[in-house]
Amino acid sequence: MCARALGGATLAMEKRVGVAASASAVGKKEGEGPLKRSFDHICADARFGERSWERAESALLKKCFALACDKAGLSPGGLDYILSGDLLNQCAGSAYALRESGAPYLGLYGACSTMAEALGLAAILIDGGAGEKVAALTSSHFCSAERQFRYPLEYGALRTPTSQRTVTGAGALILALDGPPPYLTRVTTGRIVDLGVTDAADMGAAMAPAACDTLERHFAATGRGADYYDAVITGDLGIRGSALLRELLGLDGIGLGSRHCDCGALIYDAGRQGARSGGSGCGCSASVLAGYVLDNMRSGAWRRVLFAATGALMSPTTSQQGESIPGICHAVALEMEAE
Amino acid sequence: MCARALGGATLAMEKRVGVAASASAVGKKEGEGPLKRSFDHICADARFGERSWERAESALLKKCFALACDKAGLSPGGLDYILSGDLLNQCAGSAYALRESGAPYLGLYGACSTMAEALGLAAILIDGGAGEKVAALTSSHFCSAERQFRYPLEYGALRTPTSQRTVTGAGALILALDGPPPYLTRVTTGRIVDLGVTDAADMGAAMAPAACDTLERHFAATGRGADYYDAVITGDLGIRGSALLRELLGLDGIGLGSRHCDCGALIYDAGRQGARSGGSGCGCSASVLAGYVLDNMRSGAWRRVLFAATGALMSPTTSQQGESIPGICHAVALEMEAE
Repeated sequence: MCARALGGATLAMEKRVGVAASASAVGKKEGEGPLKRSFDHICADARFGERSWERAESALLKKCFALACDKAGLSPGGLDYILSGDLLNQCAGSAYALRESGAPYLGLYGACSTMAEALGLAAILIDGGAGEKVAALTSSHFCSAERQFRYPLEYGALRTPTSQRTVTGAGALILALDGPPPYLTRVTTGRIVDLGVTDAADMGAAMAPAACDTLERHFAATGRGADYYDAVITGDLGIRGSALLRELLGLDGIGLGSRHCDCGALIYDAGRQGARSGGSGCGCSASVLAGYVLDNMRSGAWRRVLFAATGALMSPTTSQQGESIPGICHAVALEMEAE
Repeated sequence: MCARALGGATLAMEKRVGVAASASAVGKKEGEGPLKRSFDHICADARFGERSWERAESALLKKCFALACDKAGLSPGGLDYILSGDLLNQCAGSAYALRESGAPYLGLYGACSTMAEALGLAAILIDGGAGEKVAALTSSHFCSAERQFRYPLEYGALRTPTSQRTVTGAGALILALDGPPPYLTRVTTGRIVDLGVTDAADMGAAMAPAACDTLERHFAATGRGADYYDAVITGDLGIRGSALLRELLGLDGIGLGSRHCDCGALIYDAGRQGARSGGSGCGCSASVLAGYVLDNMRSGAWRRVLFAATGALMSPTTSQQGESIPGICHAVALEMEAE
């Protein structure tokens, strides 16, 4: 009873890998956006009571993780594995948030694709018999990301129209063998795709080709058309990156139509909230998945969802050195009915 | 036919997960050290022909990966997964080294424990049926690490006696279902342990408690005493951290005796080469494993080895903010005979 390889780096789970619990926690701005009702916790204080933005991000992730554990009725030590990572240098947000958990810890780096990478690996671990309860979580914070990737907030730097706003948010799912639906039924692992985009203020363009690659491989390997899913949800391509993805898929004759939505385009009212091309950051797709997407599945609005989180694998140093931006996209299928 | 959980976050592989190929590549200083005969490639040019230290690190890892693929007779696209990560911010060393590989990529962050984390996950993926050929690799570079974690080289900063020198090196293993020995037979996943050490120039002390935790859990879960193994090889505790580990284990009545060695203590002649407490960095344990350790196994000198790589999960930012240093240690057992 192990994963069945379908080709195209796509696996079919053979066990029932359910979602025991999910939780999301976000900052004030996200809590004023269109998805405000879907988040478990909205914190008006961007510092989360801490003395630095980095500590604030860890506090946010820790809060989100505690909420998920509470909902699952588990102590952190009851988890077989925790899979986490974030955008901070050396993934410090996750390490400090989880250092007291006492659970086996596997650190990941998938940039903004981390939630899908963690979920895919968590499902594979459970399906392969390595564990029965595995947490997948990640976070990002506007203020820690701005000063690390762009400019100190105090500079008041202007943002280009293609830029995305890093979401202050965290999402956590606890997957469990024979847990309640939705079930994680398919996992497609991403490949690095770099078509030469060098503008670090246009991440959507850098990541769209990777999303296209992963979605196409997923559809081909599973034999499922896009219309198999009620929703195909990309990570954080934002408004511009989403348009590019649809264009790229269209060149290959694939139309997602109205079933495509993007976490980065959903989380803010971009015009009213000044978010330019939308949201980004590990916490963007993680908090939207843990909140809005799972709400829609549990309510019956969606029965089959393909969640494809995207990441840009550059660093400020590589950008300063003139490198282009490699993108990646990992995808997992969530379904209310197991096969 | 899936992994059998032994408790203590330890899994017994039920399939034969062998090592199809291994490769190591290092810099000039490592190539002048005691292990010089064990490395596949020694480069006299620390820049590896590139214009920046970060690009040099990617070139080093890329070279090592190509060597491993060649030895395995595989093209990178023939791999089911690549698992990699490194110390550079946003793990850029790995992303840029592997962006043209075309293989499914899972980015990891385990600091200097990355090689063991990658090997453990690779073995689990193969054992669980998710793939048949999986690469685990990582790198570090003295010059890119110094300027990122400590001071620009041009400052000529003095080093404390407890400090370790980041190894310029990379190691890559390609694991394969039913591949040749040694087999990866046991995987013990680390927990984050932080006993409050704040001195970023004393990583050995910060990581030793995590190594102690993982080794004790491994011995308890497997029912194997330390004397089951011909060698227990820690990642990069260095000379001082190794002494602390032996002291901690001794408090719990566990003696490793002469079967303990440490990659950080092995790679340099610390006195002659001015390496203070020894080597560190992801590439330290990776290059020593891919070279010296596997040489000793294939020659018959060692038949059973426990490889326990250690990592310090702090960042320069968290250190500047006065945080203590969380440590982690992942362990994998390598054995010439499968059960």
